[in-house]
Amino acid sequence: MAGILYGIGVGPGDPELMTIKAVKLIKQADIIAYPCNKDGISIALQIAQDYLPKTAKTFGFYVPMNVDRQAANQAYDAAAETIAEHLDAGRNVACLCEGDAFFYGSFAYIFERLDDEYSTKIIPSMPAFVAASAALKIPMLIQNEDLQIIPATLDEAILIDKIRTGSNVAIYKVGRHFSKIRKIIDHLNLLPKANLVEYVSQSQQKVTCMVNTNEETRPYFSMIIINKR
Amino acid sequence: MAGILYGIGVGPGDPELMTIKAVKLIKQADIIAYPCNKDGISIALQIAQDYLPKTAKTFGFYVPMNVDRQAANQAYDAAAETIAEHLDAGRNVACLCEGDAFFYGSFAYIFERLDDEYSTKIIPSMPAFVAASAALKIPMLIQNEDLQIIPATLDEAILIDKIRTGSNVAIYKVGRHFSKIRKIIDHLNLLPKANLVEYVSQSQQKVTCMVNTNEETRPYFSMIIINKR
Repeated sequence: MAGILYGIGVGPGDPELMTIKAVKLIKQADIIAYPCNKDGISIALQIAQDYLPKTAKTFGFYVPMNVDRQAANQAYDAAAETIAEHLDAGRNVACLCEGDAFFYGSFAYIFERLDDEYSTKIIPSMPAFVAASAALKIPMLIQNEDLQIIPATLDEAILIDKIRTGSNVAIYKVGRHFSKIRKIIDHLNLLPKANLVEYVSQSQQKVTCMVNTNEETRPYFSMIIINKR
Repeated sequence: MAGILYGIGVGPGDPELMTIKAVKLIKQADIIAYPCNKDGISIALQIAQDYLPKTAKTFGFYVPMNVDRQAANQAYDAAAETIAEHLDAGRNVACLCEGDAFFYGSFAYIFERLDDEYSTKIIPSMPAFVAASAALKIPMLIQNEDLQIIPATLDEAILIDKIRTGSNVAIYKVGRHFSKIRKIIDHLNLLPKANLVEYVSQSQQKVTCMVNTNEETRPYFSMIIINKR
């Protein structure tokens, strides 16, 4: 019998923000798969480190993050092929993802390649923006408010419209788009209502009101939260 | 020394979707507080049931959910007063919330009454929409997509605009607004891309493509997810 592929979100960074279910399934897995950088380093693996079974085999796959998707697609093809071999051999594979597996997670690309032929299960987890509102101690949503979750990669006109119309906004993928985003928030007179949250829930977590930021770039995993109330 | 007030999200329903941190803090708490209905029943308490310390005292508070906020405000005042007495006596209080404490959670109202005077900590958890995308097996966000999280209580014109412009949409508080929402989604030709998710992650979980729904009302904790890709 073929193994099961689990897409397991490990949350925003603090290992204690993993779910009971994620920990249980990681402990039972035969193979722990994870996306990693060129040097083989994986933040998702680091988050789950304390819960890895000693007997598990690990499989890291590097995906180049170019605008051109061809290299990424080839990397996902190869990773999916290796995972399929494990599943064919009856091994259960836990594929780890920072945050949630289906929330800007690379697991979506592994999933779309294997879901037709294999048994798959998605184990949901907390996206980083939820931990950010806890860190800020500002409720994300009350009463009839809405929340716009947007990537900083969008065109300026779309960003302006969405930031202007939402009662709350969470901006992902800030990184090298920080300067563009900061100008838009300033233009809309929202700097005092906006906070930059870096490395949320991790030991180096840092919260800065956007009034007090400059226009340099930021780490990829920075996010900006705007609460207008 | 005064106790600490913890706002603890217990996730969408499956107790295994609680975080390691939530379980740890609930087990250590002196007082377990929770919002409940008129009959004293609390879904948040039921979710956390297996992790309640045998020695903990529980404190349920009923909040009337009228459009008029006065009765609700009085109930929150009274609940905050009782919680403050426990904190003054040096007892740590864990206030449980379905989903996440700051995501349409009633904890925001307890928090705003006590945060100035007492030490508070927010323990974030998974909002229901994340579990819904896992149940649907449809990625919530990929690449440059955005997500609009909106309550069904908004005016029709605003709902139409937000549902039309978002690449993905999660609609909360569907309940008695189901018929209105269904008409809007139909009008935008999005019924085949929309799914109704009821009791997500619980044993009675039910997923229905909106094409196959009628125009009756739905339980308060239904949600509709639209993925346009």
